[in-house]
Amino acid sequence: MTTYSTTSPEEFRLLCRKGEFTGDTAGACAEYAQANLIVLPKKYANDFVSLCYRNSAPCPLLCRTPAGNPKKVNSTKFFKSTEVDLSTDFPSYCVYEKGILKETTTSISSIWSENHVGFLIGCSYSFENDLARNGLIPRHQTLNRGVPVYKTSKYLDPAGIFSKCTYVVSMRPYKKSELEKVRSITRKFEETHGEPVDWGYDGAERLGIRDLMHPDFGDRPEIHEDEIPVFWGCGVTPQLCVMQMGDAIEGTVMSHKTGSMLVMDITGDNIKNL
Amino acid sequence: MTTYSTTSPEEFRLLCRKGEFTGDTAGACAEYAQANLIVLPKKYANDFVSLCYRNSAPCPLLCRTPAGNPKKVNSTKFFKSTEVDLSTDFPSYCVYEKGILKETTTSISSIWSENHVGFLIGCSYSFENDLARNGLIPRHQTLNRGVPVYKTSKYLDPAGIFSKCTYVVSMRPYKKSELEKVRSITRKFEETHGEPVDWGYDGAERLGIRDLMHPDFGDRPEIHEDEIPVFWGCGVTPQLCVMQMGDAIEGTVMSHKTGSMLVMDITGDNIKNL
Repeated sequence: MTTYSTTSPEEFRLLCRKGEFTGDTAGACAEYAQANLIVLPKKYANDFVSLCYRNSAPCPLLCRTPAGNPKKVNSTKFFKSTEVDLSTDFPSYCVYEKGILKETTTSISSIWSENHVGFLIGCSYSFENDLARNGLIPRHQTLNRGVPVYKTSKYLDPAGIFSKCTYVVSMRPYKKSELEKVRSITRKFEETHGEPVDWGYDGAERLGIRDLMHPDFGDRPEIHEDEIPVFWGCGVTPQLCVMQMGDAIEGTVMSHKTGSMLVMDITGDNIKNL
Repeated sequence: MTTYSTTSPEEFRLLCRKGEFTGDTAGACAEYAQANLIVLPKKYANDFVSLCYRNSAPCPLLCRTPAGNPKKVNSTKFFKSTEVDLSTDFPSYCVYEKGILKETTTSISSIWSENHVGFLIGCSYSFENDLARNGLIPRHQTLNRGVPVYKTSKYLDPAGIFSKCTYVVSMRPYKKSELEKVRSITRKFEETHGEPVDWGYDGAERLGIRDLMHPDFGDRPEIHEDEIPVFWGCGVTPQLCVMQMGDAIEGTVMSHKTGSMLVMDITGDNIKNL
C-alpha cells in the first residue's frame, strides 16, 4: 500500500473510482487526511448527527451530503474540487440490511437512493504521518498491514434510535515511555479522533477486549514485550452501531470497508488546525 | 425552593450575591436555564476544553472567563447584562485542594486569583420546566428536594491531564411507558446534557451505581414500583474529575455546590434552540 504514499488525493480517488485500487489506505497519500463513511436512510440523519455530537471521540463528524446526492458534500474545507463521489471514491464498501452485512463491493452508486444521506467521519490514519515524522511510525505501517481494529464493551452515549451501541477502537503499540508524546501529538487531531481513549493491558480490559491478537477488523497486530497497546476511537463505530441495532434500522445502510478510506484534499497538518 | 419559581434571574442572582439564598435551585426561576461551575488554574484550561469537547453529554461547555476575572463571561447568549459575577452569584461553592474538598462557602471572590479560569457547564435543571409542562414533573420537584446525583464507573474519554475520570449522573424516575417522551423532550437540550445517558435498573448496573437510595450528592430519591430510574449526564462531573485526579492537579480548584446552580438570563425554550 505504501506505493501510493506520494500519489495525489485526486489521482488516488480516480484509481478507486475505476476499481483499480480496492485495498487498505494506511500510508496512501501520506500527507493527506482520510475519512470513514456511513450512509443512512434520511429518517435516521438527525439522530446520527446527535450521536456524533455526543460521542466525538469515536464519531467525529466532518460533513454530510443532502439526501440522494453522493457527489454533493457540504464542505469546501475538505475537498478543493467538486470532483468527489462518495459512492465510488472509496476503495471498497459494505452493504448492510437489518444490521447484517450482505455484500462488499467497490461501488455503491446503484444502491444509493433518493432516500440516502452520507456522512464522513474523521479517520485516525490522518495523524499517522505526524506520528511517523516524530519517530513514532505506527507498527502496522512498518509491517505493510492495515491497523488492527476491535469491538469494545464501552457504551456510546445514546442518541435517538442509536442506543446501547458500543465503541470500536483502533490500536497501535508503543513503549510506555512514548505514551505522553503519542497522546500529545494526536490530541491536536480533534476532527480525526484526537488522543487515545485508553491504553495499557488494563485499558484493554476496561474496554472489554479479550484477545488482542485477533482483532475484529483490520489486520493482526505485533506488540513487542516492552510495549503497551494504545487505543483510539475508530470511525467503524457507526457500522457497529448499525449492526447492534439490527432489525430496528429499516432499509439499506452502506459504509466504507474497514481500512479502505476516502482520501481527502486537506492535509493532516491542516486538519489538525481546524 | 419553589418560592423562587417566578423570581427574575437578575433578582435571584442578587439574592445569592448577598448570601440571602444559599440552597438548591431546582425550580428556581423556572423558565430559565441554569449552569454548573468549575474554576481551574489556567494551565489546565486547554485540557478541560478538550475534555468537554470529547464528552459533551456529561460536560456541555457553555462559556468561560479569561484568567483572573470572574465577572467577564465570553458570551452574550447566556447573559443579557454584564451584571454577573461567577465568584458570588451561585448560592454555594466548594473549594478543593489536591482533589480534596476543603471548604463550602457562599463566595469565592477572595480565592479567585489572577491564575484562575472559570467554566460554565449546562445543567439539567434547565429542561425540568419543559418536562413539567408536558406532564412529566420531576419527582424531586414534587417532593421539594434537590435531584439525586450519583458517581458512576463509566469512563470519560480522556483529555490531557484528565484521564481515568468517570461520569456523574442525575436521576429522575419515570414509567417505562414515558421513557421515549422523556428522551425526546430532553434530546433537544444539547447544551444542558441532552437526552439520558442510560436508564432502567440494568442501566444503573451498567453505570456501576450500587445503591440508588443513597445518592452521592443531592437528595434521596423516591422511585415508585411501576417506575424505572432514568440517568442524565451531570455537570458535577468536572468536580469528580478533580477529586479523582487528586495530587496531579496543583493549586486551588473551585466549583458550585451540587444543586446550587447559577441562573442564567436565557430561557429553557431558547437554550434548546441554540
